[in-house]
Amino acid sequence: MKELKFGKPMEIENESMHIIRRELEEMGVELPEEHAFVVHRTIHTTADFDYAKNLVFTPHAARRGMEALAAGTTIVTDTNMARSGINAKAMERLGVEARCFMAEERVARRAAQLGTTRAVVSMDLGAEEFPGGIYAIGNAPTALLRMEELIREGRLHPALIVAVPVGFVNVVESKERILALAEERDIPAIAAMGRKGGSTVAAAICNALLYRAGGR
Amino acid sequence: MKELKFGKPMEIENESMHIIRRELEEMGVELPEEHAFVVHRTIHTTADFDYAKNLVFTPHAARRGMEALAAGTTIVTDTNMARSGINAKAMERLGVEARCFMAEERVARRAAQLGTTRAVVSMDLGAEEFPGGIYAIGNAPTALLRMEELIREGRLHPALIVAVPVGFVNVVESKERILALAEERDIPAIAAMGRKGGSTVAAAICNALLYRAGGR
Repeated sequence: MKELKFGKPMEIENESMHIIRRELEEMGVELPEEHAFVVHRTIHTTADFDYAKNLVFTPHAARRGMEALAAGTTIVTDTNMARSGINAKAMERLGVEARCFMAEERVARRAAQLGTTRAVVSMDLGAEEFPGGIYAIGNAPTALLRMEELIREGRLHPALIVAVPVGFVNVVESKERILALAEERDIPAIAAMGRKGGSTVAAAICNALLYRAGGR
Repeated sequence: MKELKFGKPMEIENESMHIIRRELEEMGVELPEEHAFVVHRTIHTTADFDYAKNLVFTPHAARRGMEALAAGTTIVTDTNMARSGINAKAMERLGVEARCFMAEERVARRAAQLGTTRAVVSMDLGAEEFPGGIYAIGNAPTALLRMEELIREGRLHPALIVAVPVGFVNVVESKERILALAEERDIPAIAAMGRKGGSTVAAAICNALLYRAGGR
């Protein structure tokens, strides 16, 4: 039986990243230097090389996201799962906080009153409390649809949009729409086109930017 | 521009599940009735149809997992991310708790003292406090390797093992090994063979079982 080593997490991560770069090279995939580290970390998190094709970036989205993080911009997520996947030590080092409104009592109450979803109300609260925040959406396409409305109404000016909901209904369209708006308004955005994405992907993208911005 | 509806979450889930079943049928995939609902929910969470092939089950693993949940068995996870992805209301309804030791101060301290990883120490604490728990591992192959040792030493008797770490180093082997041991010892296990998996997959499998066991 092959002896498996209990390696140090950092060594294992380096070895994993080496494998990912090598396999991408073998596939003939060439990524823009500026964004490659985000793609690598997303593949590291998912073991899914589809993200080499799926992830799209508006001009200098990674650099502008890192600048926002270095300035201590709050990250608003659409799930507590995404929030808890963002590296707490890296955030602390940069003075960044991550917030998710979904599970708050007032969100359930307001959603029931308005006959809408908690994801929509969460984005409304985000726009009220962090109109210039980084928005990392890994689950709810309705969160992206609501963000689109809030941006058009001038109530939300995100420093970065991470648009990576996963799923089968409204998901593809919601990502295409927010990306088109981001391009039109010159808002930095990183999106996973197609059906794939998720809370782990949202967190991985935030972590890639946090680490590169000096969080580790 | 196509009008996208802000549908009710449950309606959207039902529509998504319908799409998943239809596309699996179109692909000619036939899943055993007993385990299909777990596969469906995993695909729902990842939009990745690879799980129709990757997910393997020891005999009656889903039924036995549901029985353990219906009896209020604690779920131990290897990440707080997986823990926070498990539906809190569904757990409450069945009297189930989810625990993750990873971020506890004593874990970091003990890992430093012993020169090992926090994942290993987390499993040691799991074995001490919940020797008959459900173990849902979505991240750390070392957690599975340590579980293997603890089971062989007679210190851990899991009610169910959800073995779905993701990654490039030790991951494939750790899942193959725990599955072989589970088969040998007749421990119910659900594993994602290959590199893929993750915290969202671990949570999705637990949620599938919780919902079917009466949590929703």
